[in-house]
Amino acid sequence: MPGALLIDLYELNMVASYLRRGMTSPATFSLYVRALSPHRGFLVTAGLESCLGFLEDLSFDDEDLGYLASIGFDPSDIGGFSGLRFDGDVWAVPEGRVVYAGEPLLEVSASLPAAQLVETFLLNQITLHVTLASKAARYRVAAEGRDLVDFAFRRTHGKDAAMAAARDSAIVGFVSTSNVEAARRYGLRPAGTMAHSFIEAFESEVGAFRAFAEDHPDSTTFLVDTYDTPNGVRNAIETIRELGIAGGVGVRLDSGDLDSLSREARKLLDEAGLERARIFASGGLDELEVEALVRADAPIDAFGIGTEMGVSADAPSVDSVYKLVEYRGPVLKLSAQKTTAPGAKQVWRSPEGDVVALRDEAAPSAGAEPLLEPVMRGGARLASAPPIGQIAARFDADLGRIPEPARRLRDPEPVVARHSDALVALTDRTRAEALRRAGLGA
Amino acid sequence: MPGALLIDLYELNMVASYLRRGMTSPATFSLYVRALSPHRGFLVTAGLESCLGFLEDLSFDDEDLGYLASIGFDPSDIGGFSGLRFDGDVWAVPEGRVVYAGEPLLEVSASLPAAQLVETFLLNQITLHVTLASKAARYRVAAEGRDLVDFAFRRTHGKDAAMAAARDSAIVGFVSTSNVEAARRYGLRPAGTMAHSFIEAFESEVGAFRAFAEDHPDSTTFLVDTYDTPNGVRNAIETIRELGIAGGVGVRLDSGDLDSLSREARKLLDEAGLERARIFASGGLDELEVEALVRADAPIDAFGIGTEMGVSADAPSVDSVYKLVEYRGPVLKLSAQKTTAPGAKQVWRSPEGDVVALRDEAAPSAGAEPLLEPVMRGGARLASAPPIGQIAARFDADLGRIPEPARRLRDPEPVVARHSDALVALTDRTRAEALRRAGLGA
Repeated sequence: MPGALLIDLYELNMVASYLRRGMTSPATFSLYVRALSPHRGFLVTAGLESCLGFLEDLSFDDEDLGYLASIGFDPSDIGGFSGLRFDGDVWAVPEGRVVYAGEPLLEVSASLPAAQLVETFLLNQITLHVTLASKAARYRVAAEGRDLVDFAFRRTHGKDAAMAAARDSAIVGFVSTSNVEAARRYGLRPAGTMAHSFIEAFESEVGAFRAFAEDHPDSTTFLVDTYDTPNGVRNAIETIRELGIAGGVGVRLDSGDLDSLSREARKLLDEAGLERARIFASGGLDELEVEALVRADAPIDAFGIGTEMGVSADAPSVDSVYKLVEYRGPVLKLSAQKTTAPGAKQVWRSPEGDVVALRDEAAPSAGAEPLLEPVMRGGARLASAPPIGQIAARFDADLGRIPEPARRLRDPEPVVARHSDALVALTDRTRAEALRRAGLGA
Repeated sequence: MPGALLIDLYELNMVASYLRRGMTSPATFSLYVRALSPHRGFLVTAGLESCLGFLEDLSFDDEDLGYLASIGFDPSDIGGFSGLRFDGDVWAVPEGRVVYAGEPLLEVSASLPAAQLVETFLLNQITLHVTLASKAARYRVAAEGRDLVDFAFRRTHGKDAAMAAARDSAIVGFVSTSNVEAARRYGLRPAGTMAHSFIEAFESEVGAFRAFAEDHPDSTTFLVDTYDTPNGVRNAIETIRELGIAGGVGVRLDSGDLDSLSREARKLLDEAGLERARIFASGGLDELEVEALVRADAPIDAFGIGTEMGVSADAPSVDSVYKLVEYRGPVLKLSAQKTTAPGAKQVWRSPEGDVVALRDEAAPSAGAEPLLEPVMRGGARLASAPPIGQIAARFDADLGRIPEPARRLRDPEPVVARHSDALVALTDRTRAEALRRAGLGA
């Protein structure tokens, strides 16, 4: 897909006006989430890599420019567009970090047209990845160490979202993915067994199990619920005995009451001397169902997680915005209930809590950690993409430090970042200036 | 993005086993939605075009095959994969039709390996598009003829979903989209005005309005809520008068109480003699809010619709499945509460209701209309992609025929399709056969 027209028309309208007037001074935009859904106590950063790739490649080709001329931009606008590249600086919270509402995840400083032009794409990618990573992280909390596998591809919102679900769930600790392309691209472990159709394509369930085990002797997971789950478990046991399978074996439950069926399956497997056979559960599970099964100590070793994670069903977006915070001085928006905070920023984290400050302030306390880092300068990345394992390690470290009220799955209470005194003072001064700009006095 | 590995690993596992055993007889899979969300009274078909493109192009290249060898498939499996193409037949309900639970949207008949291989991709695309088209259709019902514009790009689940939101909302009657690439690709009308950042980049709101109006004299919509909405409307009026703008003008309200603000804006505009200035509303609107504004007769001419439509927030997926219904005779799955119906099918629509029947049955009544049509034979499309306008006309025709209980937005009651006598009889016979295959007797 060509890239440069993956924008909203209003960005081009604005950029055309900026270029006509020579409004090309440096501007800073801040990308953050205004408020969390009641179902979220924390968010997880992700999506930065695809943003940086887009920024590096941004330019309009002749076909793009021809289309823009056809919809009404005049030759001087087209000339201006043709020279546009992203030549700015980006600060960002690295992927895999835990963050909260109002904390900038990404700040873009570039000439006003370049910084404005990339609004929609950056919002789209950060929103997608933060939404999915934050949802997947709730499963990580719920599973308490049991394995989680991404099965979401078939119901995600398209291919990009399938790739994102695989990558973002890996960041928060999922052990494998069903998505073969994602496994290849991101170096993840691919996982998969069989569908009900496989069982039905054979003359008998036992026949299907036998064929699959012959073909996959090292690791065979039998899907046992096509006809009747306990009977399916017995057929799996019969197959394992008959073929004398020495490799890893397991059964997958994909429907019905997973608590009672897993106990029944465990009993049958144990009685057959298959104490090491694993039980795998799937079937539209949300994270609260996983938590309930884990807390009830249902003997489930691994969960296959699909739609509910892949679309973040209870909160399918985050309230992300990309706001101008500085252009020839600090700026803000006053609209009802939606006032923004001016200026380039830094977020500091310490055991006392998070502080949103102006970027050039000193640390609010000794040992406070800055979350935002420079990641692009003059349009060039400052480092290559880290491997997923390194991002996952970042999340692991942060996960252990989330306060319990923010971490719990039901009625979470997110951390609320404090604004530094300097930011509060600048906000007050800028508000007075905004009233003047509106023609409302001061 | 390379295409052939956009599959789940289990499909390859099954296909490898089928190929090893020469299980290449024709199979039929049926793709349908099992049950509707309580928030949906009807669904709209969409996504067929991307499915057909995928099926036509499907093949593994050397890089794909090398990756599959690296994850454990043996040389004979790889040899089998290398020869796979989609050479089957597809029947489908054309895009833009109204459908209900249990009605096949797509049926694939091909050799068992080829038909199995495409499961995940077909589900992914149909699920995405049906989800978004069905949500967008609810806005169409709510707006009662007022204009709707797609503003969803920034919060959709990635680029594919943004393109889908633009296309699917156009199918159900949205008049334009903010997404420039989608406008180009699908021949839609691009739409866009300005962001709050544009206002803030100028020394005054009036200055920003003046600049924008000078640059877009033919059609200027002023975003009036950056600082204070009524004051913004006054500044817009001042600009219109000062510049003597003769083209289309309007104001956009993006926050606050849209009902009262739109009345206040209308009053100010009318008092200024600008009776033809349009009022445009946006800001996270769901279809129930649009319906409430329309029913209250708020003077809003057009709505910009973003996140809630773009992620189908109240029902972000449909319960879609791809089930084997025929392989060496009819088959079905018995799992708890999830029994499937066997055999290739047709759906008949008439004023008496919808009937799901076996494909080769006669029409259940004179004048009943068959919904499924052949769209691909032997791997080749039977017709090129229709223009969006033609698909939108199909939806228009169907929209007028949805029974009121299914069409209403709150507590809808979907149409429930009846199964033909022949399908019921086949289901009963196949259930007995399934019990035998499970080893559960007779």
